[in-house]
Amino acid sequence: MNDTRGAKERIAFLRSLRAVRSFRPEPVPEGVVNDMLEVARWTGSASNRQPWTLVIIREREILRALARMEGYAKHLAGAALGIVPVMDGEREEQEIYDEGRLCERIMLAAHAHGVGSSVGWFVGSGVDEVKEMLGVPPQRRVRSAISLGYPDETSRRRRMGQARKPLAEIVREERYG
Amino acid sequence: MNDTRGAKERIAFLRSLRAVRSFRPEPVPEGVVNDMLEVARWTGSASNRQPWTLVIIREREILRALARMEGYAKHLAGAALGIVPVMDGEREEQEIYDEGRLCERIMLAAHAHGVGSSVGWFVGSGVDEVKEMLGVPPQRRVRSAISLGYPDETSRRRRMGQARKPLAEIVREERYG
Repeated sequence: MNDTRGAKERIAFLRSLRAVRSFRPEPVPEGVVNDMLEVARWTGSASNRQPWTLVIIREREILRALARMEGYAKHLAGAALGIVPVMDGEREEQEIYDEGRLCERIMLAAHAHGVGSSVGWFVGSGVDEVKEMLGVPPQRRVRSAISLGYPDETSRRRRMGQARKPLAEIVREERYG
Repeated sequence: MNDTRGAKERIAFLRSLRAVRSFRPEPVPEGVVNDMLEVARWTGSASNRQPWTLVIIREREILRALARMEGYAKHLAGAALGIVPVMDGEREEQEIYDEGRLCERIMLAAHAHGVGSSVGWFVGSGVDEVKEMLGVPPQRRVRSAISLGYPDETSRRRRMGQARKPLAEIVREERYG
């Protein structure tokens, strides 16, 4: 594959990730999960601290329980696999940013194999309930979860547009204002 | 290209991103910058709010001034291009996470073209100084910057290993503890 064609394919791949919230029931193969975890492992972080542990959840009852907790993670109920990043809880601002980097990579690695994903978010009492259910010590931080599975193409949400702002609206040269 | 080979190439691509802090002087071509911005534009965000504006900086004097501000962004001084995400400043935790997702995508899009990158971070008085220099209104948030350029392969830092924790240390099944 020549380099220009390779670059074009990689850009098309990066551009094409979209949130998927409805999943088919079949499991995500172990080889795919391993690729996701390896990509996660190599994600960059502030001072290379890698301030994360990933809890992998396949049990339907746990996924359903997490989906009911306060927040925006209902799609976990139907996911074939959930991943909850548990963050070390040391430098909050950098860790949240690193958590975003990590989750983006995991979702891209899933997408590389045709596996869909979306981000869930816990708020209020949901955070402590998730920590208790997963046995996470108090000093560690939990705020997001990733739902994963093969996309249910018949789902209405899957077919809905996910529009984006035009570049002219989000890009400035040299100065913001 | 068959699908298994495609997936393998995409995973290898995602795994291979490493921080680059020393750059060759030549500019990043406009086509590459456009690809990075398009990939950025399609990044997912909480409630699809896209709470960002990207300030693109090519002027050497501005890059050098930013590199001197309080924080960890010295590598901007030698970058061919800098990008400073200006965040809307509305829902802090989700915005920091979204900023991490956005920056990871931009760095991967650069990497798709062989362009290196690393994250810079502003703290203390650095944050307000960056905002003043770039004309960012008080209610908006600035915390990170991305340095971009073709890697200087002769640099010692480029050749240094960037080790990662083994999977066994960062992965748990079903429960954290």
